[in-house]
Amino acid sequence: MSPRVGVVGAGQLARMMHQAGIGPGIDVVVLANSEDESAAQVTRHTVLGSPGELGSLRKLAEAVDVVTFDHELVEPEHLHALEAEGHVLRPGPVTLEHAVNKLRQRERFEREGLPLPAWAPASAAPEAAAFAADHGWPVVVKSARGGYDGRGVWICADEAELKSVPWGGVAAGFVVEAFVPIERELAGLAVRRPDGETRVYPVVETVQRDGICQEVIAPARVEASILREAEEITRAVCDAVGSAGILAVELFVAGGRVLINEIAARPHNSGHFSIEGSVTSQFENHLRGTLDWPLGDTGMAAPAAAMVNVLGTADVPEPERLVPGAMGIDGAHVHWYGKGSRAGRKLGHVTATGETAGDALRVARDAAMILGQERRSE
Amino acid sequence: MSPRVGVVGAGQLARMMHQAGIGPGIDVVVLANSEDESAAQVTRHTVLGSPGELGSLRKLAEAVDVVTFDHELVEPEHLHALEAEGHVLRPGPVTLEHAVNKLRQRERFEREGLPLPAWAPASAAPEAAAFAADHGWPVVVKSARGGYDGRGVWICADEAELKSVPWGGVAAGFVVEAFVPIERELAGLAVRRPDGETRVYPVVETVQRDGICQEVIAPARVEASILREAEEITRAVCDAVGSAGILAVELFVAGGRVLINEIAARPHNSGHFSIEGSVTSQFENHLRGTLDWPLGDTGMAAPAAAMVNVLGTADVPEPERLVPGAMGIDGAHVHWYGKGSRAGRKLGHVTATGETAGDALRVARDAAMILGQERRSE
Repeated sequence: MSPRVGVVGAGQLARMMHQAGIGPGIDVVVLANSEDESAAQVTRHTVLGSPGELGSLRKLAEAVDVVTFDHELVEPEHLHALEAEGHVLRPGPVTLEHAVNKLRQRERFEREGLPLPAWAPASAAPEAAAFAADHGWPVVVKSARGGYDGRGVWICADEAELKSVPWGGVAAGFVVEAFVPIERELAGLAVRRPDGETRVYPVVETVQRDGICQEVIAPARVEASILREAEEITRAVCDAVGSAGILAVELFVAGGRVLINEIAARPHNSGHFSIEGSVTSQFENHLRGTLDWPLGDTGMAAPAAAMVNVLGTADVPEPERLVPGAMGIDGAHVHWYGKGSRAGRKLGHVTATGETAGDALRVARDAAMILGQERRSE
Repeated sequence: MSPRVGVVGAGQLARMMHQAGIGPGIDVVVLANSEDESAAQVTRHTVLGSPGELGSLRKLAEAVDVVTFDHELVEPEHLHALEAEGHVLRPGPVTLEHAVNKLRQRERFEREGLPLPAWAPASAAPEAAAFAADHGWPVVVKSARGGYDGRGVWICADEAELKSVPWGGVAAGFVVEAFVPIERELAGLAVRRPDGETRVYPVVETVQRDGICQEVIAPARVEASILREAEEITRAVCDAVGSAGILAVELFVAGGRVLINEIAARPHNSGHFSIEGSVTSQFENHLRGTLDWPLGDTGMAAPAAAMVNVLGTADVPEPERLVPGAMGIDGAHVHWYGKGSRAGRKLGHVTATGETAGDALRVARDAAMILGQERRSE
């Protein structure tokens, strides 16, 4: 009997986990709302149901050795219930709660002495205004739960703008943070076994637009001291939240310091480069970590790698038709998720490796352009 | 609608085609005798049926854009029937007939001036003896059809040994060849589009034992002139048989010359290294070639790669239990096919890349040893 990893959710992360599992013979079973979802299109093992329902989660858990996640939109009490029934969740509910709840996360990181922008909990405009009085305007208000890809974040320049925050509408509350003049955005990626053994990937540089990751360059083109600091923070975050499998840390460089922005306790867009760019991809290492198997080498497989996301745009109605053309760019690895196109939706990505970041980026961008993305250059 | 490639057969080649198709969003549909077969375990799209029955082949063909092959054990008349019905087969029946029929193959290569050991058709012992009188003993008798992995081949030292050949039992007849003192075995691999565009992989070195491939080293460690000659022969073979998708040529080096041994019109064991060792794997390029898409870069992704097969042995009853341990060897890429173990059966393979062939081979062998293979060194 093959080892079986159940994935809550059936998006592109679950899809790439399945692909990575075929090599070592690990069966990936996905919990999907429908057979059309990205991962359900490619695996034989789909449990139809909703990640929001305990019954569906239980059905998945009963079919596998260990349960992991494509996304974090799961009720914590359901996760505790599954654990109480003896199912193995990796990461577990405590780790996931730290990943989704920015308040708990920041409290925890502060206790561990990990570097964060100045912050405070806030549940109403006057608290945020008081914070701004101490730390200056603008401030960044974030809902403690539920935000991603730029949603759930408000940058407020003054008291008037604080009124646009839906203060009453988010039960978990908010955090307010000092606005940090970002010099560069980085991401740390690490894989951890349940016993604490951790391997960290080279830290990457990310280029965001409108809160959505556009490009990733591996390794990041920053001083060695910054790279080391970012890798140490990534390792410390894994320990602080007790991760199992992949954990990603979005980081800022500001004033020469590395600060934590967000974390995700699962494979992450900033790690897609690893499929071709690393000795062991984040997806294979996630499966290894969740199964408590030996972790794979996180070193680079080439001097540099670049990843460009492919987002849906209104003016390209059937972008899948462009895939063969993009594959005509030598060295471009096109990953297509099988999702219907919608403006701003992540439909796929392109990775290239090279002797330099510039070489890799050129190839990945050329292919992304054929796939309808804007021309970009540095 | 995703492009759909149908594969006749559901062994490890079909399994790795499916894995390669997930990236660019190509649906691989396999024709399997049962849901337990290697490829049927991992794809959602399985047509149950027999590659020996026209009805099953038609059911597969009707579900896909193009039909390709995991193995060649298909009746030629069925293939012609499918083509007559308007289905697209890549490779087509003529290419496949050249791949499976050593008599037709050798006639064709001779006409093209391609280098072969001295040979003649033979249907009975006296013909083979007459050939030996001209070319010397021993001679190699091969059934024109149906042999692989060392089966269907008889090395005969004298007239008495010619009697062990089942002369009456093979309708397609036999070829008899001069016994060539092999200095080295090589394999050429190329991908071809239906219009003739061809890209050749670096020629590899293969180590066979009992007629079964044990190890592959890429690129082959031979003089540049031999490499070039082997690559040119590979390209010429593709044109001679009109291949589409991957074609592999098993080659000998003897007396400083490169000679053709066998061909296979599909992804081949000697090309498994390409999953990690090449910019584009043979499986992805096979899909590209069969769909008439732009071909991928066949260059190396690392200076060297080595592949070691994992064969079933009687003394290791459940080798799948050893997979996590083998994955503990840094840099070892374990591919497990999900097949039940049987002595001599190909259960999986391990690939490693490195700065030198020696480095790569050491890593791949260490992992293969954990998987129950004999220790080997050069």
